[in-house]
Amino acid sequence: MQTVFNLRTSGAGLHEFTDEVMQFVRQSDVREGLLTLFVQHTSCSLLVQENADPDVRRDLQEFFRRLVPSSDDPAMRWLTHTNEGPDDMPAHIKAALTAVSLSIPVTDGRLALGTWQGIYLFEHRHGAHSRRVVAHLAA
Amino acid sequence: MQTVFNLRTSGAGLHEFTDEVMQFVRQSDVREGLLTLFVQHTSCSLLVQENADPDVRRDLQEFFRRLVPSSDDPAMRWLTHTNEGPDDMPAHIKAALTAVSLSIPVTDGRLALGTWQGIYLFEHRHGAHSRRVVAHLAA
Amino acid sequence: MQTVFNLRTSGAGLHEFTDEVMQFVRQSDVREGLLTLFVQHTSCSLLVQENADPDVRRDLQEFFRRLVPSSDDPAMRWLTHTNEGPDDMPAHIKAALTAVSLSIPVTDGRLALGTWQGIYLFEHRHGAHSRRVVAHLAA
Repeated sequence: MQTVFNLRTSGAGLHEFTDEVMQFVRQSDVREGLLTLFVQHTSCSLLVQENADPDVRRDLQEFFRRLVPSSDDPAMRWLTHTNEGPDDMPAHIKAALTAVSLSIPVTDGRLALGTWQGIYLFEHRHGAHSRRVVAHLAA
Repeated sequence: MQTVFNLRTSGAGLHEFTDEVMQFVRQSDVREGLLTLFVQHTSCSLLVQENADPDVRRDLQEFFRRLVPSSDDPAMRWLTHTNEGPDDMPAHIKAALTAVSLSIPVTDGRLALGTWQGIYLFEHRHGAHSRRVVAHLAA
Repeated sequence: MQTVFNLRTSGAGLHEFTDEVMQFVRQSDVREGLLTLFVQHTSCSLLVQENADPDVRRDLQEFFRRLVPSSDDPAMRWLTHTNEGPDDMPAHIKAALTAVSLSIPVTDGRLALGTWQGIYLFEHRHGAHSRRVVAHLAA
């Protein structure tokens, strides 16, 4: 069973869509299986992270901003792919450092997430974007 | 077919559990399939790495310690999520840089690992922890 | 259904094999399913990245070279696993920072890749190598 999540982002950061994924699993009536997510872009990525304290998300985003600064930062003068904006090549690098696909078991009809785990689209571009995440659920 | 591996860690580092996973696959009688592991925490992660020279694991751990120092290191003063200890937010970041899920094919009844590959829980917290890894095996 | 892709690399960099994977999926006659790739080595890795501008691949490789320099770089003097050459331990670290396995949904008989996505073996060693990527396709 497959579906596509169409997510609107409005700048860099972690965009949670756990509820949408849970609803898809619930409606499937699958009791035991595997849910796989795949993001169809190379300048955003997928992340399972803590959904309790929003400071965790802010710190995560800030770490990646410091590790991979914008192309207009003097430390990144060596970048050559700069024609799509100062946030584009760093976005590709941040995507390479995180995940394009994720798999989460389904147990007793529910995603086997840990207590504090949420599912996020990690947007690395600064502008507003429409992002597609393909979900595949195997029974 | 699913199971849960309950792993006890006693500080940061790579904790191998290849044998436990192999045994689960062997007992399943699955000849050709896919084994997926998912860790239910956000301050440890999964890694497939060389299981020959222990220096490789030490160097890996040391690289991540230098890339993401403790919150009490002057270089990390910008972190805001510090109330769960100096090793907590760095642990979330290291988890984001590695993997929450892994999939390994099963061929001829055995995990299709390369000659030198082992499966590790990568613990990023300093204290002792009990960690849960959910395994899903599809035939 | 499983197969093994045998890839020859001739130095560090991104080696595309999207066409080989597409052909395997096409020949399978699977209409809806999940394709999983697993690399049987710990000094190269898998990456889905932009396949349009080759500058993106060059910049990606250069970022990782700067983040994890060779063992003979003064900044890496702390490394202990150096007996397999100055590019070996950095290769393990770069592999840990990227992916050992990837899953891509198959929809209407085709890999559900985004418009600009290609599948790459990310070789981290400097010499020529023969690399094995195991593919598992579930209907």
